[in-house]
Amino acid sequence: MIVLFTDFGPAGPYVGQMKAVLHGLAPEVAVIDLLSDAPACDPRAGACLLAAYAGDFPAGAVFLCVVDPGVGGDRAAVALRADGRWFVGPDNGLFNVVALRAHALEWWDITWRPPRLSATFHGRDLFAPVAARIARGETPPGERRDAEARIDRGQGPDYARVVYLDHFGNAITGLRAEDADPHRRLEAGGRTLSAARTYSDVAPGAAFWYANANGLVEIAVNRGSAAASLGLKVGDPVAWERTGLRTKD
Amino acid sequence: MIVLFTDFGPAGPYVGQMKAVLHGLAPEVAVIDLLSDAPACDPRAGACLLAAYAGDFPAGAVFLCVVDPGVGGDRAAVALRADGRWFVGPDNGLFNVVALRAHALEWWDITWRPPRLSATFHGRDLFAPVAARIARGETPPGERRDAEARIDRGQGPDYARVVYLDHFGNAITGLRAEDADPHRRLEAGGRTLSAARTYSDVAPGAAFWYANANGLVEIAVNRGSAAASLGLKVGDPVAWERTGLRTKD
Amino acid sequence: MIVLFTDFGPAGPYVGQMKAVLHGLAPEVAVIDLLSDAPACDPRAGACLLAAYAGDFPAGAVFLCVVDPGVGGDRAAVALRADGRWFVGPDNGLFNVVALRAHALEWWDITWRPPRLSATFHGRDLFAPVAARIARGETPPGERRDAEARIDRGQGPDYARVVYLDHFGNAITGLRAEDADPHRRLEAGGRTLSAARTYSDVAPGAAFWYANANGLVEIAVNRGSAAASLGLKVGDPVAWERTGLRTKD
Repeated sequence: MIVLFTDFGPAGPYVGQMKAVLHGLAPEVAVIDLLSDAPACDPRAGACLLAAYAGDFPAGAVFLCVVDPGVGGDRAAVALRADGRWFVGPDNGLFNVVALRAHALEWWDITWRPPRLSATFHGRDLFAPVAARIARGETPPGERRDAEARIDRGQGPDYARVVYLDHFGNAITGLRAEDADPHRRLEAGGRTLSAARTYSDVAPGAAFWYANANGLVEIAVNRGSAAASLGLKVGDPVAWERTGLRTKD
Repeated sequence: MIVLFTDFGPAGPYVGQMKAVLHGLAPEVAVIDLLSDAPACDPRAGACLLAAYAGDFPAGAVFLCVVDPGVGGDRAAVALRADGRWFVGPDNGLFNVVALRAHALEWWDITWRPPRLSATFHGRDLFAPVAARIARGETPPGERRDAEARIDRGQGPDYARVVYLDHFGNAITGLRAEDADPHRRLEAGGRTLSAARTYSDVAPGAAFWYANANGLVEIAVNRGSAAASLGLKVGDPVAWERTGLRTKD
Repeated sequence: MIVLFTDFGPAGPYVGQMKAVLHGLAPEVAVIDLLSDAPACDPRAGACLLAAYAGDFPAGAVFLCVVDPGVGGDRAAVALRADGRWFVGPDNGLFNVVALRAHALEWWDITWRPPRLSATFHGRDLFAPVAARIARGETPPGERRDAEARIDRGQGPDYARVVYLDHFGNAITGLRAEDADPHRRLEAGGRTLSAARTYSDVAPGAAFWYANANGLVEIAVNRGSAAASLGLKVGDPVAWERTGLRTKD
């Protein structure tokens, strides 16, 4: 199975062009569109989403990931195997949260280059052929590297910002919910929000935070849009309320 | 065949997450994306669209339907067989027009629950596995109910409102065209519109109503946008002109 | 392989309805979504995009193309074979650039009509069944015509306008890059732009033109949106700077 994760947008030709390459090289492999509107040119936000969604997919799945503002420049092209799943794409931080959260991790720099490599669409010309070859069972066409040396441990696996706004206006953050105290309140958009379990547990129009279905902290408004109500956009900071300090006032 | 009908929006990860579940449980079954931008959290509008489009699909098709503002609350999860086609999703009115228009109807409450059920994404955790099992030929994992007792006959199969705006700005209504007199005029957006057969039968810029390719009354502007020209949005009322009353004035 | 190219928009039911027909008639044929947001009702812009992207697909691919503002009127329905690839859709100029650029070209008028033909959705009722039959190896159900007599040679294969804005705000033009002198400057949106090889070869925020990955001249801003920075929209004219004339001033 090949899973597509890009910032190409809801439409446009780029996803279809990659699928043509995948079909030519691995016609028998299923291709699933996971996300086509990862925050544009924002590998850090994408990294949180990718790590959260990867858990839905089986071992052996190959994630073809293109959030690649540096395409055609000197950033490396890489392939990782993290806990049995494969990730192929640019080496710009997009895989850092997957790597930080992995129990088992292998890393390759992709040194193979196709006969015709455009300067601006490595998704089609480089990453798609490599993903197809891995999905067929081949070893990544490159050189093994020391994964530990490539991970950026200066950034943790949590990211206290809004990393995605969905169609309903729910605001997904880069904070993992498994570490979150459900009694703690979250500051976002100038508001301080309590937790709830699901939308209909609060009044229509009420804002809250919850542990979403992929283990991230998410901000929502029942029967409304958190993005609109709280004026949230991708990149906005969020923070846990510091209750201890406040009691002193 | 499994057919996806949701209000998840044009992009985002949710459709792909459901497809991963379907592929895991029924890899040999074709999956077709029918609609991902049903009016958000508006099961009544979605019900009209679903009933209109279902006719394009063969008997045995399984519609996996998620317009589910009450997810995680106390609304039931249901499966219907209507005229040979299956429908799986929340019991919130989304299937009422299909049920009202069906000649043969069976109804199940889904009582099975998966080992891990999130509070906010039953599309992935509950409805997708059930749809996959039905597509493989299994009986719905639940209890048969009396369909007649579950249909809401207080609402008819017609709904005199705009239920969808397409990319061209055409405004689809919840009125069935088979009952419409082509000489009658339709009031919408402060205008009174005559019928035409197709776009190019009227002058560029002219507004009209027509029987669309799925049997619903639709409002359009040749080479223009009915939504923009008439200021229409989803939920706006439409009405047949009452000619008889006017002649008295 | 059947490749979908339409102006139906990023979402909506129309693509899925065509896929249901294709699956019914040719379930074993792969279907790839290439473009669903070709400029609405603008066959001339679509023609440039279609010709540029066709080269990514193998001989035998069948392009099912629907940019069809004249649907239900008197425009013909056609099938072309151009350099081994098939194209099915309305005869409104959408295939003119493919035809102009083809080395080998055959042309059919589709005279077959389905039992039930709606007035407004020939993509589903006419073009999809024809594409499925061709993909299965059948001859187009119509009459061979003299291709030369049908091409519009009054329009060249280049079109000096913006023909598409992608999700990043890059502006694709209808000019072929293979004929472009990389030292020449391009006028667009009131600016005069030099060429670069890729985004990261210029400073963040700088605008430039480049030969895109499908051989068209494209305008971009590194880490920004050319559409926003230069105020570009589909249909805006572009022009090569006439250096010779200017030196005289």
